[in-house]
Amino acid sequence: MTIKAIVFDAYGTLFDVQSVAAITEETFPGYGDIITQIWRIKQLEYSWLRSLMGRYADFSTITRESLAYALRCLGLTHDVATFDRIMAKYLHLDLYPDANATLTALKDRKLAILSNGSSDMLNALVRNSGLDRVLDATISIDAKRMFKPHPDAYSLIEERLGTPPADVLFVSSNPWDACGAKAYGLTVAWIERVTPEAMALECVKSDVVTPLTMFKALRMQMDELGLVPDHRIRALSDLPKLVAAS
Amino acid sequence: MTIKAIVFDAYGTLFDVQSVAAITEETFPGYGDIITQIWRIKQLEYSWLRSLMGRYADFSTITRESLAYALRCLGLTHDVATFDRIMAKYLHLDLYPDANATLTALKDRKLAILSNGSSDMLNALVRNSGLDRVLDATISIDAKRMFKPHPDAYSLIEERLGTPPADVLFVSSNPWDACGAKAYGLTVAWIERVTPEAMALECVKSDVVTPLTMFKALRMQMDELGLVPDHRIRALSDLPKLVAAS
Repeated sequence: MTIKAIVFDAYGTLFDVQSVAAITEETFPGYGDIITQIWRIKQLEYSWLRSLMGRYADFSTITRESLAYALRCLGLTHDVATFDRIMAKYLHLDLYPDANATLTALKDRKLAILSNGSSDMLNALVRNSGLDRVLDATISIDAKRMFKPHPDAYSLIEERLGTPPADVLFVSSNPWDACGAKAYGLTVAWIERVTPEAMALECVKSDVVTPLTMFKALRMQMDELGLVPDHRIRALSDLPKLVAAS
Repeated sequence: MTIKAIVFDAYGTLFDVQSVAAITEETFPGYGDIITQIWRIKQLEYSWLRSLMGRYADFSTITRESLAYALRCLGLTHDVATFDRIMAKYLHLDLYPDANATLTALKDRKLAILSNGSSDMLNALVRNSGLDRVLDATISIDAKRMFKPHPDAYSLIEERLGTPPADVLFVSSNPWDACGAKAYGLTVAWIERVTPEAMALECVKSDVVTPLTMFKALRMQMDELGLVPDHRIRALSDLPKLVAAS
């Protein structure tokens, strides 16, 4: 294939959603990790459920609602200022350490983000991280009012970049997103940050697990959806070699 | 309202999906609980993801795929016979202890199941549990090739029973299902088997949780989807009084 554009998922792929754990732990000592995991799992669920119910709300709303859920189900009371301070971290998520160098190395192709995030969230995130210097486009699914993995969401790549699916490499660490992109007809590189072997070792006992282990078990292993990504890589930094060889 | 028909969700509402834990624990000692929880969480995710991707597969397939996922991510090897033996339990799930008496007490209304399960699975389950004696209809969403909470799934109630949404009481313990039914326009009774207070007490520490606690946190608290069920009850046995008062 000729890769003319490389399109990245944002949350969990370029940006580390686990990086909210510092602020949740600081705000609610002892609960940082479990808040972070329940928040992320419900955030994704709500994006799928609202899409299915035909009750779209933008990702900013969904992110607030899923945080509210996490705090409520843990019995953690809070005021508006505390809530907003945690939410603000979502506009300042940490980049994965290899994100900047990888994007810079790929600069001879068209580079974009396609994300469930609302335009406001994504633009702030990209500006705050400095990625606006290397990206050609930041595409929010907001225009379609359907979250990934609905095909309408992926159709925005061709609409916005003018690059047909056959010339696009889509990169995501989210298994469901890699499958959705594959189902749509994109070439897909899935970032497998936790191997099955490492995962199995973490789950040697079932009576207790850490919330992060449960999250990894639920969200970081390739899903059984009858779809297989074209490439499995271990980190963003594996991409330049893969692209050069394609 | 005049309640002419009472329609029940099956998995988690009439039938205890946690009752697979005995066979998973017997088969993989020490792993029974975590297999059960990952299996159920992924089963639901796959129903939503496949609906969104436009890649419908029936619930029997999804149930197999989610079990395969759970075993793989825990590093548990198995042969076909073992796998099939665990799967077979899904056709023999335990009824909640108050299910039979509740349905019998409500027998003067039309009684039905509306479930994500495939027709084959549901018919076997209903027959094996003896519920066929009290139910007027067992409706699978299979005919629509869209899982709940998509509106097409709930539209089957009127299609099959001839009862308009205004005359239906829909009963589910699954928060996302209660919300989906409410969004569609049904009157909804949500069974809150775990109160927020009990949940918060279980999650007093975030460094370790049991898989079952994580499941309850993710799946048994009312979701933040901008929808509120008409009734909150604590058990199926609360229904006859609620229906009599309506």
